[in-house]
Amino acid sequence: MSKQRVLTGITTSGTPHLGNYVGAIRPAIEASRSGDFESFFFLADYHSLIKSQDPEMVHRSTMEIAATWLALGLDPDKVTFYRQSDIPEIPELTWFLTCMTAKGLMNRAHAYKGAVQTNEEQGEDADHGINMGLFSYPILMAADILMFNAHKIPVGRDQIQHVEMARDVAQRFNHHYGEHFVLPAAVVDDKVAVLQGLDGRKMSKSYGNTIPLFLGEKQLKKHINKIKTNLLEPGEPKDPDSSAVFQIWKAFATETQTAAMREQFANGIAWGEAKKQLFELVNSQLADARERYETLIQDPAEIEKILQQGAEKARTESQELIAKVRQAVGIRPLV
Amino acid sequence: MSKQRVLTGITTSGTPHLGNYVGAIRPAIEASRSGDFESFFFLADYHSLIKSQDPEMVHRSTMEIAATWLALGLDPDKVTFYRQSDIPEIPELTWFLTCMTAKGLMNRAHAYKGAVQTNEEQGEDADHGINMGLFSYPILMAADILMFNAHKIPVGRDQIQHVEMARDVAQRFNHHYGEHFVLPAAVVDDKVAVLQGLDGRKMSKSYGNTIPLFLGEKQLKKHINKIKTNLLEPGEPKDPDSSAVFQIWKAFATETQTAAMREQFANGIAWGEAKKQLFELVNSQLADARERYETLIQDPAEIEKILQQGAEKARTESQELIAKVRQAVGIRPLV
Repeated sequence: MSKQRVLTGITTSGTPHLGNYVGAIRPAIEASRSGDFESFFFLADYHSLIKSQDPEMVHRSTMEIAATWLALGLDPDKVTFYRQSDIPEIPELTWFLTCMTAKGLMNRAHAYKGAVQTNEEQGEDADHGINMGLFSYPILMAADILMFNAHKIPVGRDQIQHVEMARDVAQRFNHHYGEHFVLPAAVVDDKVAVLQGLDGRKMSKSYGNTIPLFLGEKQLKKHINKIKTNLLEPGEPKDPDSSAVFQIWKAFATETQTAAMREQFANGIAWGEAKKQLFELVNSQLADARERYETLIQDPAEIEKILQQGAEKARTESQELIAKVRQAVGIRPLV
Repeated sequence: MSKQRVLTGITTSGTPHLGNYVGAIRPAIEASRSGDFESFFFLADYHSLIKSQDPEMVHRSTMEIAATWLALGLDPDKVTFYRQSDIPEIPELTWFLTCMTAKGLMNRAHAYKGAVQTNEEQGEDADHGINMGLFSYPILMAADILMFNAHKIPVGRDQIQHVEMARDVAQRFNHHYGEHFVLPAAVVDDKVAVLQGLDGRKMSKSYGNTIPLFLGEKQLKKHINKIKTNLLEPGEPKDPDSSAVFQIWKAFATETQTAAMREQFANGIAWGEAKKQLFELVNSQLADARERYETLIQDPAEIEKILQQGAEKARTESQELIAKVRQAVGIRPLV
């Protein structure tokens, strides 16, 4: 039997930060190396257009995110790593699935319902400012998944519903036109660390509290020094579990290192000293990758070449699948 | 200045009937011959999937409709005649436009609102049985139109709104990303005949009252004999203006022939005789085209070849346009 397939999409909006690294990139790359799965990774640039109508940002982010994953060790020879917009079969499959998707299903999508609720709370029309991209993106996401017959989709809790929708749509298509799609399942890893940001809340671009992943050393040190701490003096015992400094430490440290830092907190380590050690730990783990990143980002042609090779690999599959789907729905050459 | 462009889509669902011929096909082909415009005609097979999930019907209808237009004199050397699904840039443009379309705009589309009203009248959920294809097809239609920068879209009254939506979406895109699209306008020709069907209502597939266009002679005669008439005997004067027989006559006859038939009605022509003359008139006008149709439909490879040539012609434009649009939204090669 062939290996199970795992598919991961990365929206090309913004610059990756430590939270993305710890919560998504690092575990995904580790899993892709285990050899237990066939891994698909793609840059979801069509998706990015829903929220970002800034072309330079979309373009820049595509480059940064590709360079980030490659610098951190994603091996394009072992996985299929491609840019969504290089696969013209995806928008076509999206239309076929659109005709198989009940509008009622989209009405129930969390992301859409959340936007409606915000509008209503502000006394606006329910659909105020909502574009059709936001409303129908679960169908594009279904096409991303079903195109490669992925079995497992690693997602955060907020995305489970969308994977279930992809499953629903696949079932409906299979039922009507015959078996064409694997039914995908969401995989949620609750052990994955959720990193605190500079202000102690979850590290997230929308809170403006992130530490970008590949800052230069000086900048990294500066950002770490900005992490919010309390007013306890050196020598006063500190609570590690409520400290963002300790949480970030834990996400990068071995168990032994974590235990040691816990003890230092109990012994009243100065915040400045804790941050200095944190900088050294994070920096030591990222330094090599940062160097590779800097080299790659100076060489867009190399990144483009890797993406093109990935697209070629992906398209051998997507072309075959779309040919079958077209046949099934009645869109076929006349002879 | 270059010529204005006229674009006409033909949904590939069902077999063309006399009403389609008189109301759409004949005037469109005549207009395409005038040389005043650059004409684009396409088989809207993606659209057909919204209502028809019968693959054989979609396939068969594509062939029949292509053969019909060609048999009736559409000249693929003078116009651009293509199948929508041969232009992969169309679903891609659909996604770009999706991200530029307010959901509120789609909420107001007549076709969708009509379906909701029917549901509500029947005590169902508003969105009962409505698929996302029906809800979002004005965006696909906008992509069809904007892809070729068409100026004029000949439509029936029920489609004016959708052309206006395409215009809205084009404006929004142009405003945000710079001028890329011509703003299309709907053209409604109120002089075009609306043909009555066998039962006297408008001839329409949904009423099951049609006379298919390329029936064999015997079948055509049989169908014409089934046109509903009243009980007036031969010799009794008959009212032409309330008679489907006369209405169809008028749609095929010269002015002189129409005047002559009007007189025969006043003189009490027998229904059988009127139908006999109607059959002869219609048959004489369709006989040559029917022969060409029969030849073509036996030769799917020839139709496919013509469609492929049309696609090639269309794609020189669509590829150029999509490259510009991708550039505009930020989806571009990294070098």
